[in-house]
Amino acid sequence: MGVVIKIDEQRELLDTLQPLLTLVEGDMARVNRIILDKARSDVEMIPELARHLIDSGGKRMRPMLTIASARLCGYAGDGHVKLAASVEFMHTATLLHDDVVDESDLRRGKVAARLLWGNEASVLVGDFLLGQAFKMMVEVGSLGALRVLSNAAVVIAEGEVFQLSIAKNTATTEDDYLSVINAKTAALFSAAAEVGGIIAERPAGEQAALRSYGKNLGLAFQLVDDALDYSGEQAKLGKSIGDDFREGKITLPVVLSFRRGNDEERAFWRRTLEEGDMRDGDLDHAIGFMAKYGALEDTIKRARHYGAMACDALAIFPACEAKSALLDAVEFCVRRVH
Amino acid sequence: MGVVIKIDEQRELLDTLQPLLTLVEGDMARVNRIILDKARSDVEMIPELARHLIDSGGKRMRPMLTIASARLCGYAGDGHVKLAASVEFMHTATLLHDDVVDESDLRRGKVAARLLWGNEASVLVGDFLLGQAFKMMVEVGSLGALRVLSNAAVVIAEGEVFQLSIAKNTATTEDDYLSVINAKTAALFSAAAEVGGIIAERPAGEQAALRSYGKNLGLAFQLVDDALDYSGEQAKLGKSIGDDFREGKITLPVVLSFRRGNDEERAFWRRTLEEGDMRDGDLDHAIGFMAKYGALEDTIKRARHYGAMACDALAIFPACEAKSALLDAVEFCVRRVH
Repeated sequence: MGVVIKIDEQRELLDTLQPLLTLVEGDMARVNRIILDKARSDVEMIPELARHLIDSGGKRMRPMLTIASARLCGYAGDGHVKLAASVEFMHTATLLHDDVVDESDLRRGKVAARLLWGNEASVLVGDFLLGQAFKMMVEVGSLGALRVLSNAAVVIAEGEVFQLSIAKNTATTEDDYLSVINAKTAALFSAAAEVGGIIAERPAGEQAALRSYGKNLGLAFQLVDDALDYSGEQAKLGKSIGDDFREGKITLPVVLSFRRGNDEERAFWRRTLEEGDMRDGDLDHAIGFMAKYGALEDTIKRARHYGAMACDALAIFPACEAKSALLDAVEFCVRRVH
Repeated sequence: MGVVIKIDEQRELLDTLQPLLTLVEGDMARVNRIILDKARSDVEMIPELARHLIDSGGKRMRPMLTIASARLCGYAGDGHVKLAASVEFMHTATLLHDDVVDESDLRRGKVAARLLWGNEASVLVGDFLLGQAFKMMVEVGSLGALRVLSNAAVVIAEGEVFQLSIAKNTATTEDDYLSVINAKTAALFSAAAEVGGIIAERPAGEQAALRSYGKNLGLAFQLVDDALDYSGEQAKLGKSIGDDFREGKITLPVVLSFRRGNDEERAFWRRTLEEGDMRDGDLDHAIGFMAKYGALEDTIKRARHYGAMACDALAIFPACEAKSALLDAVEFCVRRVH
């Protein structure tokens, strides 16, 4: 499959995330405290639902980017912690709204909140977290960071609507797919990294470098995610294998397999993903076609391309602990299995 | 019914809104242009859906409050126009998310967007408009206004979740009901008025007066709305009579009728609103019970109480065109039929 890697390699891979984890450890403990604190409310359902998502964790890649970027820029203040928490809240709000849109059953390996509390609560608690995110940004008081993050909020929503409008279209081009992941994933990664440079008041060139680093890392991250949906292990991935397939999502592995396939295979993709007519064994067939055309390997290759761009974006920064942690994180994102 | 008024009175009533409409006319034309402009997107579904809501209008009370408050405070800049547009976008986003939550079929007299474009699009276009709102506020650059409006966003979402958690509970107290409308309506009215004083950099006492004016006007406005749901005319109200009843919403007319009713009547309210077991003629029965206990008149009386508080809040301002327009607007809100 090309993306399955051995135990030894896994250990080595985790080592690539360690420098980032170590770098941000102290600040991330503060971010996590803020996250728990700001998810509080006298309205019981809010902390319950928010805790359900927060406890299930995730890697917190986005807030780590904000912390690490601020560190890379020698920022000595306090604002990066609240900005990082804001970024994570924006992400969590998006997940809640996404689950409603996708009608997902699992999220981060747990039953999706919408199944436990209803779609309504997912919509509204998402709005609550988004509001808290903006409140925290305002407290930090950097209009530059506010500009970048409010812009990201617009781009993300716009991208989600675009994704909706091209949903279930197997003829989606790789470019259209890229537009979607640029908006729904890369925009927040990019903003998360950029605001670290903004509050540190670094020159425009460094802010642009961080923006570019985040964007390309986000693209790589999403591409790998999309490949893992057809090859990872459920327990590690925190979502079911084949989720995207069952939801009729057109991701790059599908785009490539459809375009490279023969008429019969294209008919298969149309029946399953466009018409939603799923039968026993269809997922295995899908994975088989992807193997036949090397669609997963090539998705990972594309990810490596963006990963390389991310690394080069940081080249203008002098060598330091933060820089090397951010470079290693790219390696982790491109090669991770969970 | 106590809230039905004659044609002559209607004309006289509309006269009470005229000073406000005249005062804000020029600026509101600019607000409306910004609203149309910021609802643009290359993703087709966004302007389509946004236009559907924007065209159906509504009175635009909230942005008018921002413009009029800024005017009352002698503000000479340009920021109030974008802030007013932001306020309207926040409101529109809330409506879109509300429709998903309430499963409404009508909104402002038109088919609800969710029925035409799906719940997903309503959630995401709401997110888009909210993002645009924050982007515009950031462009205005007043951290004070940002603080007030981001706080309102949190309070609104929190209130909606609270409403969800007490939904269909006929034993809801008037206080709980007040908490809900404080959050879901009064918070944005309050913020809309307050930011006019903030960008004009008026003393804290004047900002507090505007905050209080907006809050109490919002409470009055919502109380009248809730009464109208059982007594207005569909064409004028822009929503169906009995919408709240059919959705099992516990509004003040219900709270009062339930508490004042006998055992048999309480069983009626429980069957219809809690259990959702609706039969032919139930709406007429509900309206009958409200008449029996004067629940609609008393709801309007409560509205007058908050209206009076709104007017007194403005007493510290010297007499001027803007002040008298804002005072007349209270009269309009309390006595309006549509």
